[in-house]
Amino acid sequence: MKVLWLFAHPDPRSLSGALKTEGLRTLDAHGHEHRVSDLYAMKWNPVVDADDYAHDPADRLLVGDASERAYATGRLSPDIRSEQEKLAWADTLIVQFPLWWYGMPAILKGWFDRVFVKGFAFGITDPATGRPQRYGDGKLAGKRAMVIVTAGARAATLGPRGVNGDLNDLLFPLQHGTLWYTGISVVPPLLIPSADRATPDDYATAATRLRDRLPSLPTTAPLPFRHQNTGDYDDGLLLHPHLATPHHPGPSAHYTAPPPPAHR
Amino acid sequence: MKVLWLFAHPDPRSLSGALKTEGLRTLDAHGHEHRVSDLYAMKWNPVVDADDYAHDPADRLLVGDASERAYATGRLSPDIRSEQEKLAWADTLIVQFPLWWYGMPAILKGWFDRVFVKGFAFGITDPATGRPQRYGDGKLAGKRAMVIVTAGARAATLGPRGVNGDLNDLLFPLQHGTLWYTGISVVPPLLIPSADRATPDDYATAATRLRDRLPSLPTTAPLPFRHQNTGDYDDGLLLHPHLATPHHPGPSAHYTAPPPPAHR
Repeated sequence: MKVLWLFAHPDPRSLSGALKTEGLRTLDAHGHEHRVSDLYAMKWNPVVDADDYAHDPADRLLVGDASERAYATGRLSPDIRSEQEKLAWADTLIVQFPLWWYGMPAILKGWFDRVFVKGFAFGITDPATGRPQRYGDGKLAGKRAMVIVTAGARAATLGPRGVNGDLNDLLFPLQHGTLWYTGISVVPPLLIPSADRATPDDYATAATRLRDRLPSLPTTAPLPFRHQNTGDYDDGLLLHPHLATPHHPGPSAHYTAPPPPAHR
Repeated sequence: MKVLWLFAHPDPRSLSGALKTEGLRTLDAHGHEHRVSDLYAMKWNPVVDADDYAHDPADRLLVGDASERAYATGRLSPDIRSEQEKLAWADTLIVQFPLWWYGMPAILKGWFDRVFVKGFAFGITDPATGRPQRYGDGKLAGKRAMVIVTAGARAATLGPRGVNGDLNDLLFPLQHGTLWYTGISVVPPLLIPSADRATPDDYATAATRLRDRLPSLPTTAPLPFRHQNTGDYDDGLLLHPHLATPHHPGPSAHYTAPPPPAHR
């Protein structure tokens, strides 16, 4: 594998930091290449603005249009281009973060906001069919991703009946709406629960689970998200009625089979 | 109402900016007070770090502990305290943003990451029962919120069968996991769809919908999220089995009744 490890925690001495080190060591031991984007260490700027696109501030900023033009003409800001190059190099993306308010820390959300510009990650049309290439199709198709998330909650409370909602549902905007949207296959997430009170034994368990998941990543079955363009959706991009339960089908309707439980 | 209007768009000349102006004018016309946190205009820093908490960088940064200590001793950074004071003043919170990668722009996610610290928004225990106060209970209970979201997608593709997932499911981490978690009641979101190609007529429609929603906000039925501490969850904080469909109940299991469609 060629792995881009995207990491977002303010303290390298954290549980998250230790797991990142453990993961990179595991990749080394198995002969896999890796590059790291340690967003806090890089002082990554997560805020989209006109400067990203060499945009004339006198003109109204239409983010999609401005980003597409800057991408096409090589005028995206250098920090964005550098991240796009790393992702282009990689065949595998690890997205590791502590779950803050049931989502990514802002510094990481802003990596996707800024790096996944129009023309690179969305707004791509198949020249043969004229159809938009997304949800399983696009320039990033062929790559794989895995989310690694540390959370204070107990595992069961992030399961199907847990008060916080199921982890795969909470991650739906990232796993389906961002990664799969751009064509990237997503294997089930690795959840490290009860992370704010981990004992040395808990750490050992977490590290073992991580060491198991990484080498098998290329052969792990991805989350079975539906493809946009293979007949499950109608021309208006709505699921055919027989594929959705009557009232509130929820995110699981966009899978062809139930995902495995997130908290193994 | 006393409204805090939280706004995250890089260009005030945008559709989003015009709707914010329209909304504030509507509040004025009805005699409601308002304050605004225009995050781009404020150059809001969305990145949690040790400086937020007057934290000694020689010590490991445990975000929850450090934020709780800084909150309790009045040593949170001044920009965070100022936002907490605005929210304490308000009885109503508007959260307005363009939907970027099916979530909040990073600058807005980082408002919640930094302002909603332990002791203020989570980690609060009922002294009488010893139970955590969250999901419908907590220091912010009694307030209301409404999300206003502009999106490029057509409304139906953000509905129950839409390829992008249902808007209420996409907003579950914000509406349930953040706002409701802290005790804030959330009325159904206002979706302004097809926003990147709005005509003057579309704008007029959007403005009318906004002008209708704002004055009725205090009497609008909130999303019927379940309360954590009123018997729907067992002692392990799992939904009682009879309240959840067998396999993948999804976010809708955490409502007592189906939410109204987001795209009215």
